[in-house]
Amino acid sequence: MIDTPGRAEGWVSVFAPASVSNVGPGFDAFGFAIEAIGDTVHARLRSEPGVRIVSITGDGGALPREAERNTASVAAASMLRRFSAPPETPGLEIAVDKGLPLCSGLGSSAASAVAGAVAAMHLVGAGREVDVTSPEVFEAALDGEMVAAGGRHADNVAPSLLGGFVIVRGVDPPRWARFEPALRCHVAVVTPQIEISTRAAREALPESVSLADAVRNWSNAATLVLGLVQGDRDLVADALVDAVVEPHRAKLIPGAEAARAAAREAGAFAGGVSGSGPTMFALAENEMAAAAAAAAMAEVFAGEGLASVSTTTTICPEGARER
Amino acid sequence: MIDTPGRAEGWVSVFAPASVSNVGPGFDAFGFAIEAIGDTVHARLRSEPGVRIVSITGDGGALPREAERNTASVAAASMLRRFSAPPETPGLEIAVDKGLPLCSGLGSSAASAVAGAVAAMHLVGAGREVDVTSPEVFEAALDGEMVAAGGRHADNVAPSLLGGFVIVRGVDPPRWARFEPALRCHVAVVTPQIEISTRAAREALPESVSLADAVRNWSNAATLVLGLVQGDRDLVADALVDAVVEPHRAKLIPGAEAARAAAREAGAFAGGVSGSGPTMFALAENEMAAAAAAAAMAEVFAGEGLASVSTTTTICPEGARER
Repeated sequence: MIDTPGRAEGWVSVFAPASVSNVGPGFDAFGFAIEAIGDTVHARLRSEPGVRIVSITGDGGALPREAERNTASVAAASMLRRFSAPPETPGLEIAVDKGLPLCSGLGSSAASAVAGAVAAMHLVGAGREVDVTSPEVFEAALDGEMVAAGGRHADNVAPSLLGGFVIVRGVDPPRWARFEPALRCHVAVVTPQIEISTRAAREALPESVSLADAVRNWSNAATLVLGLVQGDRDLVADALVDAVVEPHRAKLIPGAEAARAAAREAGAFAGGVSGSGPTMFALAENEMAAAAAAAAMAEVFAGEGLASVSTTTTICPEGARER
Repeated sequence: MIDTPGRAEGWVSVFAPASVSNVGPGFDAFGFAIEAIGDTVHARLRSEPGVRIVSITGDGGALPREAERNTASVAAASMLRRFSAPPETPGLEIAVDKGLPLCSGLGSSAASAVAGAVAAMHLVGAGREVDVTSPEVFEAALDGEMVAAGGRHADNVAPSLLGGFVIVRGVDPPRWARFEPALRCHVAVVTPQIEISTRAAREALPESVSLADAVRNWSNAATLVLGLVQGDRDLVADALVDAVVEPHRAKLIPGAEAARAAAREAGAFAGGVSGSGPTMFALAENEMAAAAAAAAMAEVFAGEGLASVSTTTTICPEGARER
């Protein structure tokens, strides 16, 4: 794998897609990968042990350059530990190209962690075929994500690693159910330029929920998956509602409710807050409706005095892959 | 429809199947209809207004004979009100054949209510085709179920009326998502001879649940439906677990945990408490394994000094129908 044509000087490059997590009623459980945007991690072996970050682009200088504080390098280091015995532990140099805005609710830290773990597996996988469904990669990516998220959350890691729509079943050991929705849909994602502190997002979470709200959410969660699998748009539209977490999180995003309504008005059939926000997403039947929904949401945010970045994309069946 | 051959003296007979509700993580939301057991309601028009119960069989004399206290007659009366204007309101005579044990957790009161509502629709539906998916029938059946359950719960009414596996989406107005599992499975149901008071079952419910348990339940609920739709037995086995309600309800059933474990040991791949109990159900790949699971559960209950009634059956795609 080293020094083959196109991999000059032993670099391997891995792309991991952005992801929309929670997806309405599936807080901490649901996520899907999206096409077109994501992070790329380049890595190569070096003789000294340990992981060193040689460059980060696309983050405007915001991410820590210390290897022990960056999700990509922590995930890569975790892979190194899993696949090499101490005396001959190799080291890695990595370079991170951020294609994703930071702290946006699109799984930016998870995408870097996943790309870091998979790139490291390509280099130190001991001749094994690189299998993104192997528990080691998943666990290494979770180790990376933990640096940013403060906990072992898999609802962005799983779709970024595996592609498609993923239901997280557990993290220790990693367990998941993955499927590719039969429902063809286009996805609008709009990220208003505000920062939501991790602490504020966490503090907005209720510790407990009423049994009635919980019932509503598991009815919605099951119906959402049924609608996606069976290609039933009306079920998805009816079920992509979160009674438990999103109402609290939407309060931190100026114009969130109005943006959601505007997206529907513009032709989207469902939508909500992506992850912990501030990105809002909307699902639409075709690209034109998705673009109209994105424009409508951006206009609402503009009315709140917020610039925003919009993308229209699709659910991505593929997860992390070599570039 | 009146006085045709086989409907001597104008009787119409409607069968509504028993149902397993909750189904692990889907408290108050999931239910599936089962083959072979259920209630039958016979009805015919009479000239005096109002509904009169002429006989009830199969209940050992336990059910109220007053029309305003029986789920079948209340549901039938509700249908009468929906389809006839006061001056020419007809009345009904009904006879109820209970094929289901009372207070067993198999949707006995719901099956009678559904059969009563559908039988009445056959007689007073004003020439309309009898459509079990019409909101009027659903609402009339809920009116009946309310007499027994004290609330508008649809997780037994919906599968008994519609057949298959139903996710309840709401009761006012009735909304549901229904599917027929691709997973072929046989169902063991074992009803130990103990009475669980409605009050005790209700008091066992928590008012609120921790966010972590709620997350577990909606991950399980969504995965259970995914497994059933995709025919993935391992997903169903992994997901048919309730972190929220069943642990409380199982405490009211002597031997419940041991019965569940014994059913698995005997070859079932999943199972739990049916509705509010005391019936336990188990899912198995074939009839022999279902029978073995039923026998194993019955043996556990026998060890607790409890006689029980066992049935092995399948998920029933059909709901209420004329006999």
